Amino acid sequence: MAEFTTEAKPAAPDVSLDAQGLDGQEATAILERTRACVDPELRAAIDSLPGSMRRIALYHFGWEHADGTPAAGNAGKAIRPALVLTAAAALGGPGAREAAVRAAAAVELVHNFTLLHDDVMDRDTTRRHRPTAWTVFGDADAILAGDAMQALALQLLAEDPHPASGAAAARLAACVVELCAGQHTDTAMERRGPAEVTLDEVLTMAEAKTGALLGCACALGALYAGAGGEAVGAMDAFGRQAGLAFQLIDDVIGIWGDPLRTGKPAGADLVARKKSLPVVAALTSGTPAAAELAVLYEAPYAKEDLERTALAVERAGGRDWAQVQAADRMARAMQELSRAVPDPEAAGGLLALAEFVTRRSS
Amino acid sequence: MAEFTTEAKPAAPDVSLDAQGLDGQEATAILERTRACVDPELRAAIDSLPGSMRRIALYHFGWEHADGTPAAGNAGKAIRPALVLTAAAALGGPGAREAAVRAAAAVELVHNFTLLHDDVMDRDTTRRHRPTAWTVFGDADAILAGDAMQALALQLLAEDPHPASGAAAARLAACVVELCAGQHTDTAMERRGPAEVTLDEVLTMAEAKTGALLGCACALGALYAGAGGEAVGAMDAFGRQAGLAFQLIDDVIGIWGDPLRTGKPAGADLVARKKSLPVVAALTSGTPAAAELAVLYEAPYAKEDLERTALAVERAGGRDWAQVQAADRMARAMQELSRAVPDPEAAGGLLALAEFVTRRSS
Repeated sequence: MAEFTTEAKPAAPDVSLDAQGLDGQEATAILERTRACVDPELRAAIDSLPGSMRRIALYHFGWEHADGTPAAGNAGKAIRPALVLTAAAALGGPGAREAAVRAAAAVELVHNFTLLHDDVMDRDTTRRHRPTAWTVFGDADAILAGDAMQALALQLLAEDPHPASGAAAARLAACVVELCAGQHTDTAMERRGPAEVTLDEVLTMAEAKTGALLGCACALGALYAGAGGEAVGAMDAFGRQAGLAFQLIDDVIGIWGDPLRTGKPAGADLVARKKSLPVVAALTSGTPAAAELAVLYEAPYAKEDLERTALAVERAGGRDWAQVQAADRMARAMQELSRAVPDPEAAGGLLALAEFVTRRSS
Repeated sequence: MAEFTTEAKPAAPDVSLDAQGLDGQEATAILERTRACVDPELRAAIDSLPGSMRRIALYHFGWEHADGTPAAGNAGKAIRPALVLTAAAALGGPGAREAAVRAAAAVELVHNFTLLHDDVMDRDTTRRHRPTAWTVFGDADAILAGDAMQALALQLLAEDPHPASGAAAARLAACVVELCAGQHTDTAMERRGPAEVTLDEVLTMAEAKTGALLGCACALGALYAGAGGEAVGAMDAFGRQAGLAFQLIDDVIGIWGDPLRTGKPAGADLVARKKSLPVVAALTSGTPAAAELAVLYEAPYAKEDLERTALAVERAGGRDWAQVQAADRMARAMQELSRAVPDPEAAGGLLALAEFVTRRSS
């Protein structure tokens, strides 16, 4: 799945805090504080791995170069651990936030284990501007390091004396199963013809692949704050809906994003014939443009067809649908958030994070 | 790793209970009873997986054919779950045995997740007389099903209300890390030259790859019986030492085993140039035969050299070393067992299982 990074935009000018507004400023501060307190926990956990696994994990997190020398670190924006800590603080104050640091590290380990394995399966060669682990260490060791990172995540929770750790471990393990199912559906869909994918399928896939772990992160924060079942469920739903909103916007950018801002070539997802959300919405619209799009998607990629393909998605209503859906998902996310955290002031941090991850639409 | 199955001997006459002696009879009864009570738990857990993962898991466990139709089931001998239940019973009686069924299923899921992934990494095409899952469903889905099975194992424990479940989950997760390290060392060693592997390394690898999960199975049984740290540790050590004894004997059979009894061609491990325990003992013996063996192992396999290679391992002392080591490991296992379970009658089941897994030496 796409990551919440701005790293893919090396050509773009640094987005100023002013331009991001107050929410952006608050989110940036939360993310920085998250890295500062989760990284030591994460690093200690990874340092406990046997040498071979440790080396690959340190490389994947950007803390070491391929030759084992120290690197500056470039492990993404830490949105998921930030959601754990901010959800805990929203429902249980600073004490809960502090108690949830280990859970935050566990969620980040799970996220990175899935990235390691997804890269092997998808044969992706670049991640965070560096060669993926399997290209450096081989498939077998990348698979093993991912396996060990999953185990380490659940070990962190199982060894945590906090009363919520058992429920958190059960929830995180169930989430891993959902992530696997999402990745399976994704790769299976990419093998099928453009007419064979339904909108329901691709939405379920996006929820499993992107929404589930964001929801789980929020739910773990709630659990560590001692929240009851209803608040935990609402927190999970908040994260899921925000995750879906993010994915919808990310898919729009994958077609119409400004290459100068995204750092990717124009229409990258169309070139790759990806069955992203706007594309499937267009394909299943029953419009004349849908039929045209299906023909274009069946044919091998040709540069001169790119603009026509993007136009077909748009004329078939794929772009509008995705933008309306994204707004709708964000509205649902806000509704769930106010159920979980009725006090708007306490919910502020989570709101800022949700706006931050979906900001790229602007 | 090798499995504790007699399935690889289709040409051999059924081993009669008489020939196995009383221990064999007791072990067979334990294994049958284990399957009868663990399979429903295991099956229910797998049935809870999303369709795609469930299908691969059911195929891997032999409960379904590749086309999804029901199969008779052929999921190995269930030694590990039998160790969990028998250790629980030895220290806590029938009640503890019953309480530990979920932990037994979790250990079996972990074992099978590692088999699924090992087959992908090692490109093995046959497991339990059937095509391996990756050859049927592809690498990506086999990796995903393994990931989901690991998560499911830890979910089973995390959701178990038993007071020992948290400690058991932590121990099982730590064991997964050790299994990964063992598999890494194994594949890395196979890529190195015959002179570059030390006996310590290959023993550590065998302990991590084979001993660790047998030890963990016994330790989980002890935890579920409410045993203290010392008994849990002794149980772990018992399983580890018995596992090493098994691996040593399995490696001897891989060179000198009767093809009629093993169902494998003579000297299969030598043909594959495997750096098994007797081979590394021979290579590091400093004898003239060691030098001859190193030369033979560097050269591509030639049928006429097979007998000479086996003889070199023997003349360099590899066979004797492995047999003495196996006996020594079994003696240590017995010592640990009597520390964990001082009453010989209560320890009888575990003794029978340990004898059973190392029986193939006879």
